Amino acid sequence: MTQNIYDDPDFFAGYSQFPRSIDGLEGAAEWPSMRALLPDLQGLSIVDLGCGFGWFCRFAREHGAAHILGLDVSERMLAKAQAMTADAHITYRRADLETLALPEQAFDLAYSSLALHYVVNLDGLLAAVHRALKPGGRLVVSIEHPIYMAPSRPDWIASPTGQRVWPLDRYLVEGPRTTDWITSGIVKQHRTLGTTLNLLIRHGFSIAHVEEWGPTDAEITAHPDWAEVRDRPMFLLIAAHC
Amino acid sequence: MTQNIYDDPDFFAGYSQFPRSIDGLEGAAEWPSMRALLPDLQGLSIVDLGCGFGWFCRFAREHGAAHILGLDVSERMLAKAQAMTADAHITYRRADLETLALPEQAFDLAYSSLALHYVVNLDGLLAAVHRALKPGGRLVVSIEHPIYMAPSRPDWIASPTGQRVWPLDRYLVEGPRTTDWITSGIVKQHRTLGTTLNLLIRHGFSIAHVEEWGPTDAEITAHPDWAEVRDRPMFLLIAAHC
Repeated sequence: MTQNIYDDPDFFAGYSQFPRSIDGLEGAAEWPSMRALLPDLQGLSIVDLGCGFGWFCRFAREHGAAHILGLDVSERMLAKAQAMTADAHITYRRADLETLALPEQAFDLAYSSLALHYVVNLDGLLAAVHRALKPGGRLVVSIEHPIYMAPSRPDWIASPTGQRVWPLDRYLVEGPRTTDWITSGIVKQHRTLGTTLNLLIRHGFSIAHVEEWGPTDAEITAHPDWAEVRDRPMFLLIAAHC
Repeated sequence: MTQNIYDDPDFFAGYSQFPRSIDGLEGAAEWPSMRALLPDLQGLSIVDLGCGFGWFCRFAREHGAAHILGLDVSERMLAKAQAMTADAHITYRRADLETLALPEQAFDLAYSSLALHYVVNLDGLLAAVHRALKPGGRLVVSIEHPIYMAPSRPDWIASPTGQRVWPLDRYLVEGPRTTDWITSGIVKQHRTLGTTLNLLIRHGFSIAHVEEWGPTDAEITAHPDWAEVRDRPMFLLIAAHC
């Protein structure tokens, strides 16, 4: 089973304080770019892989989606999602993305925000998602950027000439990365950008857009601490279709 | 016009000493991976964008290509290519990739090795290449990897804990990068991986494969100095089709 960090009480308490936990989609820096990749949601059947507190499920419903299935491995997150949702067209279900089974050709859109970099069996998951999408169906996902995930010590350093730089190493060495984020021992799965794209292509997806997210000038004015993203990307957004 | 560094006598003399200049394709670390992306060349009409000494043009002809057009901006390189070629089915022509005009639907394959990262007007070039390919035609290209190109000071440093790391910065800041390689003041055009892929998609290409080249264990045994590539990729290989 996926490491279920979100049901760790300390992690859950810490994560619940994040802007994206309190303010929802508007608290996520990359949301405007994710939103720009979405098709018109009117009438669509949608699955959200790693739905967390259900912010996207409710957004999709408010924008006319016909039915949304929100999946997450964390009981705590699903309980909070359910408590914030009063809509018979949104279904939350506990599911392990490592061994996910979905009905065939059932969805128009598969959405996933910052969840797939925890999945070891991405190959199996993408096969299941491709089968679950209708012909012409879409996939819109974000993951942590591999440049952000790769290093042995993923934190800024000063170069010998005094510049703040990102100490990249092990970019082509794929596999687990154990980091401390809120609590210690969080395990993520590092894959190169090429590997992720080739996996999608092999499972029958056509790549429609690849975005290494960065802030606009206006966003940096509003959030000066986001400027560092221009030195090394943090989020990777991919849109694909069947 | 593209900065024509290859006609600088000092640069040309230096470049001519490189393994890939002396040994041809077999002297290029990434060649086996590029070759694996090629279709069967039998009977194909091919354009080589930045053909240099013509090694690939001759390889393609030896493998049954019907006609190969080798384009380069460097008169010195074309002269040497011509001197090494005695084949009426290979044509070399001086051309500036910034303003390239090609006949429409004339080629089955467009090939380019480590040339497109010098091109400012990649948008115009890809439009011309897409028009020049037949329906179903292929594009196989290598460029310097954007992780390799991006940094203010693109050379290994020691981190405060003594590790050798690649000092990444300015990854999302696209535009010219001036470096010293053989001679000083070589100007390359840095684009993120996403930008290059999205440009291809916008011009009608389907992405077939994205490879951030790294050496195999056997290659590292034979060339121990190649191991550093696993810490930060140097070449980006892309296969696409119309």
